[in-house]
Amino acid sequence: MLDFIAARRDRREHGAQAIHAFVGQLVGGAIPDYQTAAWLMAAVLNPLNENDTAILTQAMASSGVTLDLSELPKPWLDKHSTGGVGDKTTIALVPALAACGATMVKMSGRGLGITGGTIDKLASIPGMRLDFDPDDLVELAADTHLAVAGANRSIAAADKILYELRDATGTVSCIPLIVSSILSKKIAGGAKHVMLDVKVGSGAFMTNLVEARELAGWLVRTGRKAGLNIRAAVTDMSCPLGRTVGNALEVYEAFDFLSGKPTGRFGELCIELGGQALDLAGLAHSPRHGRERLREAVSSGQALRKAGEWLDTQGGSFEAVLNRELPAAPVQIEWRHKGGRKFVESIDAGEVGALVVALGGGRRKKEDEIDPSVGVEFMVEQGSPLSDGDPVARVHARSEEEAAEALERLQAAVGLADKPVRISPLVFDVL
Amino acid sequence: MLDFIAARRDRREHGAQAIHAFVGQLVGGAIPDYQTAAWLMAAVLNPLNENDTAILTQAMASSGVTLDLSELPKPWLDKHSTGGVGDKTTIALVPALAACGATMVKMSGRGLGITGGTIDKLASIPGMRLDFDPDDLVELAADTHLAVAGANRSIAAADKILYELRDATGTVSCIPLIVSSILSKKIAGGAKHVMLDVKVGSGAFMTNLVEARELAGWLVRTGRKAGLNIRAAVTDMSCPLGRTVGNALEVYEAFDFLSGKPTGRFGELCIELGGQALDLAGLAHSPRHGRERLREAVSSGQALRKAGEWLDTQGGSFEAVLNRELPAAPVQIEWRHKGGRKFVESIDAGEVGALVVALGGGRRKKEDEIDPSVGVEFMVEQGSPLSDGDPVARVHARSEEEAAEALERLQAAVGLADKPVRISPLVFDVL
Repeated sequence: MLDFIAARRDRREHGAQAIHAFVGQLVGGAIPDYQTAAWLMAAVLNPLNENDTAILTQAMASSGVTLDLSELPKPWLDKHSTGGVGDKTTIALVPALAACGATMVKMSGRGLGITGGTIDKLASIPGMRLDFDPDDLVELAADTHLAVAGANRSIAAADKILYELRDATGTVSCIPLIVSSILSKKIAGGAKHVMLDVKVGSGAFMTNLVEARELAGWLVRTGRKAGLNIRAAVTDMSCPLGRTVGNALEVYEAFDFLSGKPTGRFGELCIELGGQALDLAGLAHSPRHGRERLREAVSSGQALRKAGEWLDTQGGSFEAVLNRELPAAPVQIEWRHKGGRKFVESIDAGEVGALVVALGGGRRKKEDEIDPSVGVEFMVEQGSPLSDGDPVARVHARSEEEAAEALERLQAAVGLADKPVRISPLVFDVL
Repeated sequence: MLDFIAARRDRREHGAQAIHAFVGQLVGGAIPDYQTAAWLMAAVLNPLNENDTAILTQAMASSGVTLDLSELPKPWLDKHSTGGVGDKTTIALVPALAACGATMVKMSGRGLGITGGTIDKLASIPGMRLDFDPDDLVELAADTHLAVAGANRSIAAADKILYELRDATGTVSCIPLIVSSILSKKIAGGAKHVMLDVKVGSGAFMTNLVEARELAGWLVRTGRKAGLNIRAAVTDMSCPLGRTVGNALEVYEAFDFLSGKPTGRFGELCIELGGQALDLAGLAHSPRHGRERLREAVSSGQALRKAGEWLDTQGGSFEAVLNRELPAAPVQIEWRHKGGRKFVESIDAGEVGALVVALGGGRRKKEDEIDPSVGVEFMVEQGSPLSDGDPVARVHARSEEEAAEALERLQAAVGLADKPVRISPLVFDVL
């Protein structure tokens, strides 16, 4: 291990043998945390090259249980977002892409900080089971070809160990470590086609477009070296995605998309990412064709039916979603515009994410409980015109005090302009 | 602690408050090893600046017990070597400098690897006690004004914790960490005047003159910032220092110097360093004057008498040293020259150090026991002419096999030339 640390400290290539030995010993509990921590810091300051990153990714992927999807029809597709505020695309795209012929068996994370988690959102559906073992998850998808479960500690076991230490030693921000963490879990999850959504903006992990593009490039190149058919979109997270932030509220919005209701920028992103994913997986002959297939799956009702099958299989109440019977917050207050003709110039995603965490809708620490009912509902998005009396947003809270506090933060997070504004691009790049 | 790690990772200055908080928590056991290890690796790759190094040094110095020498006459002088093969200067200089009027109360280390330790050498003297508590050490020196003890864990407590982690995480080689480790112990030891001997060559920690000069400069500048009156010599360690390597053998050589017997390059170095030290401490008005005073102390017999008082106070048998009754090895074999007229071109200090460790005279691991009797005695030094039959060296060993093996390595470590050779400088620089 001292040689392995010294190689990183002195910026030398590790090679396959050393990396596999490291990951094996790490999972076997043979390496003291302080040695792993020293290596992690050396890896942050002297990053791994792309070869070593691909080897590390594969070693981590095979360090725990792996999903075998061979009983399920191809293509095996996965869709992953680096996380943002109001990002419920997975809930919309899993059934919509399955309706187009993809097998969508997916493990997903819980939220932490301002970034929500798909699993927390789905957990607001009464009866929805999300704690399946990897084997059971594959069996569950035997008929419907789609299933979603919370990430299991036995998947990419090395990643769990490294991630917890990175969190405790200031070694999170490092592209090769981020890349191997994300992709090892995708590979262990069994998908061959992976559509990534790299978020950039105040509501995302990456706040700078140059860095987000760099991460996306690394993810795609490393994924290919590790044998994946992979594509990445770099998309906007300066404003919250869509009109809802908060767990149950976001489920409604995802199902609005699946029901063919207008959903603004959120629906647009679903169509963009879904079209790319269908093209990537060979279910369309171009992204444009993919978008058409996806719109067709939604407008024909197939996507919503597939979502119904999905919820049924996992015990979740489809009725409760359609009838808007998910947990509701006791206090709802509305913000109506005053101050004459204005245009919504900006909605700070980071700040909206933070105020929803403060309402109880997200976790500050891993152990925190979350309240599925709270959140913010916007009646506007960037660019919307406002006249006096127009509703801007509604805060869903557990108490009057929390609602008032959140509303004050919300009002500071929304920038208004006197003239029509330029709307930020939704998709910056597809790699 | 995460902020402290991030500051180092991002190459920011820590400042006094953060460093004192870190050292306090470290000694209080409040920091998990993996966080300290991450900081150490960040400190290796993004070294502390000189300000932070001086602050860290002071914080480490006051992290444990400190010696209060105020009951003893000034000047309070210390002499420290970064360690080498055959380096017994401390044993010669402590009594010689005390004979010139300095108070020499010193804590010293044990040897590890090829580098011998003063404490191990002194331990070969029958009866010699070296395990004094800091307070007792000062009391011990009340009349004689000199005393030497092994380093105590309670001195610079933070250094012990950091040093063990550095050893286990590949973070030893880093000038600011080396500097703070050395100087924190000197400051805690109470001396105000510190004469350093930075060794360079195959038998030293620093093998490269540029790096040794850099370390010496850092030591001097940091020491001054931390309030010491400090000077450093950079001296040769490509050949073993003097004619003996091995614990009891080196004690004899140190006392040969104190008795006024000719001791070649070793005696020369004692005079050089001692002269500088007397000048530094204000006991001479120049290094030249210091050298004269030191020669006078030796030739008058004062230095040897002082050594006798020293050993008496600490229970060591002066008689045993003078009568050559220290532990002796059962096997001694002599190497006599064959092959015609030659000159000794080089004696590889690193290799000689390693073969003495193999004989049992040094430690591979901290827990190893050492044998005081074994070692190598040279009858030549660099530049000596050799004719057939001249004795070159004598190996002192525990068995015939070990002696034969050591002799073979020794013969490979000594380079012979056909013509007279240039002798390496003894002192490269004084800063």
